[in-house]
Amino acid sequence: MLNKINSPDELRQLSRAELLPLADELRAFVIDSVSKTGGHLSSNLGTVELTIALHYVFNTPEDRLIWDVGHQTYPHKILTGRRDQMHTLRQLDGISGFPRRSESEYDTFGTAHSSTSISAALGMALAAKTKGETDRYAIAVIGDGAMTAGMVFEAMNNAGVYDDINLIVVLNDNDMSISPPVGALNRYLARLMSGKFYAQAKNIGKSIMPEPVRQLARRIEGHAKGMIVPATMFEELGFNYIGPIDGHDLDSLIPTLQNMKDLKGPQFLHVVTKKGQGYKLAEADPVLYHGPGKFNPAEGIKPATSSKVTYTQVFGDWLCDMAAQDNKLIGITPAMCGGSGMVEFEQRYPNRYYDVGIAEQHAVTFAAGLACEGLKPVVAIYSTFLQRAYDQLIHDVALQNLDVTFALDRAGLVGADGATHAGNYDISYLRCIPNMVVMAASDENECRQMLSTAYQYPGPAAVRYPRGAGTGAVVEKVLTTLPLGKGEVRREGKSIAILAFGTMLAPSLKAGDALDATVANMRFIKPLDTALLLELAKTHDAFVTVEEGAVMGGAGAAVAEALAEAGCVKPILHLGLPDRFIDHGDVAQLLALCGLDADGITASIRQRFGKDALRLVANQH
Amino acid sequence: MLNKINSPDELRQLSRAELLPLADELRAFVIDSVSKTGGHLSSNLGTVELTIALHYVFNTPEDRLIWDVGHQTYPHKILTGRRDQMHTLRQLDGISGFPRRSESEYDTFGTAHSSTSISAALGMALAAKTKGETDRYAIAVIGDGAMTAGMVFEAMNNAGVYDDINLIVVLNDNDMSISPPVGALNRYLARLMSGKFYAQAKNIGKSIMPEPVRQLARRIEGHAKGMIVPATMFEELGFNYIGPIDGHDLDSLIPTLQNMKDLKGPQFLHVVTKKGQGYKLAEADPVLYHGPGKFNPAEGIKPATSSKVTYTQVFGDWLCDMAAQDNKLIGITPAMCGGSGMVEFEQRYPNRYYDVGIAEQHAVTFAAGLACEGLKPVVAIYSTFLQRAYDQLIHDVALQNLDVTFALDRAGLVGADGATHAGNYDISYLRCIPNMVVMAASDENECRQMLSTAYQYPGPAAVRYPRGAGTGAVVEKVLTTLPLGKGEVRREGKSIAILAFGTMLAPSLKAGDALDATVANMRFIKPLDTALLLELAKTHDAFVTVEEGAVMGGAGAAVAEALAEAGCVKPILHLGLPDRFIDHGDVAQLLALCGLDADGITASIRQRFGKDALRLVANQH
Repeated sequence: MLNKINSPDELRQLSRAELLPLADELRAFVIDSVSKTGGHLSSNLGTVELTIALHYVFNTPEDRLIWDVGHQTYPHKILTGRRDQMHTLRQLDGISGFPRRSESEYDTFGTAHSSTSISAALGMALAAKTKGETDRYAIAVIGDGAMTAGMVFEAMNNAGVYDDINLIVVLNDNDMSISPPVGALNRYLARLMSGKFYAQAKNIGKSIMPEPVRQLARRIEGHAKGMIVPATMFEELGFNYIGPIDGHDLDSLIPTLQNMKDLKGPQFLHVVTKKGQGYKLAEADPVLYHGPGKFNPAEGIKPATSSKVTYTQVFGDWLCDMAAQDNKLIGITPAMCGGSGMVEFEQRYPNRYYDVGIAEQHAVTFAAGLACEGLKPVVAIYSTFLQRAYDQLIHDVALQNLDVTFALDRAGLVGADGATHAGNYDISYLRCIPNMVVMAASDENECRQMLSTAYQYPGPAAVRYPRGAGTGAVVEKVLTTLPLGKGEVRREGKSIAILAFGTMLAPSLKAGDALDATVANMRFIKPLDTALLLELAKTHDAFVTVEEGAVMGGAGAAVAEALAEAGCVKPILHLGLPDRFIDHGDVAQLLALCGLDADGITASIRQRFGKDALRLVANQH
Repeated sequence: MLNKINSPDELRQLSRAELLPLADELRAFVIDSVSKTGGHLSSNLGTVELTIALHYVFNTPEDRLIWDVGHQTYPHKILTGRRDQMHTLRQLDGISGFPRRSESEYDTFGTAHSSTSISAALGMALAAKTKGETDRYAIAVIGDGAMTAGMVFEAMNNAGVYDDINLIVVLNDNDMSISPPVGALNRYLARLMSGKFYAQAKNIGKSIMPEPVRQLARRIEGHAKGMIVPATMFEELGFNYIGPIDGHDLDSLIPTLQNMKDLKGPQFLHVVTKKGQGYKLAEADPVLYHGPGKFNPAEGIKPATSSKVTYTQVFGDWLCDMAAQDNKLIGITPAMCGGSGMVEFEQRYPNRYYDVGIAEQHAVTFAAGLACEGLKPVVAIYSTFLQRAYDQLIHDVALQNLDVTFALDRAGLVGADGATHAGNYDISYLRCIPNMVVMAASDENECRQMLSTAYQYPGPAAVRYPRGAGTGAVVEKVLTTLPLGKGEVRREGKSIAILAFGTMLAPSLKAGDALDATVANMRFIKPLDTALLLELAKTHDAFVTVEEGAVMGGAGAAVAEALAEAGCVKPILHLGLPDRFIDHGDVAQLLALCGLDADGITASIRQRFGKDALRLVANQH
């Protein structure tokens, strides 16, 4: 049956009875598809019925469906004409693992970073009102993990006063974001779901909850049992709260959604789903099956066979080792315990571990508060997510010159997740901030050294390192620091000095060999080793800067500024990421396409400083 | 009596009876002091009793007092040893208008941007727990306006699960932030304060509210009247809610706070105050008296006598004129209606005006949602506050290349508000983002032209303009656009080409006159007018870039990158703001100290390109 569904219009022509077998087919397709391409699994198994119900009840794409985070949209993609492209998922030139406006009219808003959906949906709902398109709905589907981010509260606070808009928020409550959920809101949601309250709700069928009398009765009943009054938090923010209902039961979902179409004003439907639903292995370990690589569905995911140590592991080991040495160390993650390599730290130092939820802003200012008291917080945060806490980094940490260490994982290109998750801007947005120290790791051992350096530095310092494994450098157990603001010459050559930052050292060294160029491992973006620059300037004709980050305002620009300030006039070639968003694909492929592998660097230098050009340069001495 | 209080220790030796006359003296001192220096008034009149009560009850600075936003801390400064420095407030080398850790041990956390206090206080409370300092309290005082920002919710969600910390949040509810409050939370707080509930609360004296039985009774009573259950929202987040109580009544405040010291876990005290309390003129118009200049307290603030039009007014006029021409225009402000010059727009186009509260993140993604539907949102936001929405600008607007116009007021130095509010980084943090167009206005008329240009450009575009008035340029009524990415030569000279960005055009022209240098008004930071650069390179020996923004990664760096990419090797001198945070003071003074007035620019160029240096440069041709 799934093979005949090429659009939601065709889905809407099915009978209610046909939807149940369709859901089974869709679920099987998702498992098969993800097992062949890798990607997100648990979350997509959790949204099969919800996706069917939403497209069945609402008139998509006329009605706007916005999926928060967006990695749970594989069923949506399959039902909206992209079934035959699923085998290209997250690969170069293939379809994205997230909704993309350019990919389908059904992808009404590009999502990936969490918690944006209600703001966008409110914009669309108010636009419909403004334009007089009063029949159009805007529906945001958001997980319970994403609800902890402040911008959700901001959006609900704003939405709650408009009683004439067609805005529906569907809380997809699966009691798990990428990390287990934390915080008071999660406890609150758990209370909402507990006891016979939920059992009752499962059978509401056609009736819309809550009607006032029953609600009041339930509240008093709840109090009698010591429970907090259900549903009020969302009602206090001006939403009409409905639920919780079983998000895998089409007979609950469809009538409820149909009846909700008759209600005006902000609606909040609490749906309970299970990550990994329908695939026993994923149900049992939704974290393992959150974002697997390829696997055999019959056998499940096999334990990874050794492979190289990742930078994430280097950080996790360093964190434990430094914590053992200094009991002032505090580890903070905004809901990325596993992704940031903090599982062991959490286990060994539970009293010094804080998962603050998807709450980057709070994470950074919370760290500032700890630092004021003489503790030494380490904020582990992906480069792309630090964008969420930029003001807090400036205003609360850097301006007060507080001793906070930022461990920036996923700096540079990230591969399958694509442009939304790329950590391409941190060099530019961090180095312009006074008091910051910014380092880029060129290999795993240097990453560890830089983390120690940042930690011992008594002010704000960031270490950026990429996703995945590095060069395979042996990581020494000792906790050594590097001299502040000092680079090192790694290859002595002639005429051209290649200044490599972070991951670009390895390909730069190869380019240096090919061209007999000098290669420096700059290590520090800020403070920059200007003395080394000027020393190299004496004996070289030109500089080449290489970084895995935006050229605009990046490390290369820092070199240009430093040379200009010193009055040193030399040709410079800036190599780095171009001024465009770079789609998903294999990182090595993407770097090669950007000219940031050894061959690309060599070719760029040859093209710019071919023999003629170099002679011209030499004449300028 | 106030003259004898040089520290809270001395305050704590007073009898309860002496506090009332002290409050009167303190209030009079605040009025007198602010009338002589200018500064914040209404908010400080509202916190007189609260400040006395907090220092009287708590053992500051051992107990940590964190004032959200911080512009209401004049009574706090006066009571903590800075009475005699109040005449230097917000002036060069004087004390800050905000709490500063470097200024006093009683200023435990620097604030200014709103809504950071609970995060910081939680950090301090958990630090106290970690260090075994179990008697120490952390107290955050936060206004109702600041409560709309998402990071408050993030912090409360995190704090609410720790039942063994000494954390107290005091909600200073005066029903007004800088703009009138908006959103569902405000309605909720108003309900909490309505009716006899508040009347009851005023008399709670020594008893701590709410004890369970009375609470339940009140809830049922509330329902009977159709009221929402009071107090639950904060309780749902794990806080013990107490109040509301009268924040001007020391006999309510002091016993309540004293009793709260016996409670463990997160406490939330709802205090009701009145902005401008005790000064009739400010009570009547707290917005006018929010941040006045000098005035005669007996006469009050006089209507401003003409003076030059400000950039803010230029924006406000442009917004109305463009809205009249295009009904797709939507104006958005995060709680800065007046500050951003949107009062007239709100009145004339109420259905196209959105004040979303102090919620920059939501403001930007909300704009993205509107833009998806073909409307044309204009987000008016101070440069420093856009830092709060950096990820949303990247991930939701720029990545999807959506048509959103950003009007960046207060770009560059802002004067009396100092480093926390300076808009020094927007050039660096914006230009590294693909798809962005970034302009800097050199005068009022160009600001209007740039706003039109940004508006007509079908993607994300930002116009930066400074606080206050400009050169006095006549603003033409016509809505003209500028050619995209094109600068203009404003003075033809020799040898040196000065490339001026935005406000630096006027002093650069004077420097050009002094040096007979060419001066270009670059207008666009991105896309940069590379053709103009290369044209100038043919006939000039060196470039000088001048901008009112951080040199690091700024417009000058953009010039260096563009020249490097074109293979053009020329000496460049980058002038702009240095790599340090710049304190409060008069903008003209501060710019002069940074060498960014005409004399400073001239001197810097002479120093770098004196006759010898220029000859050397010439030899390189």
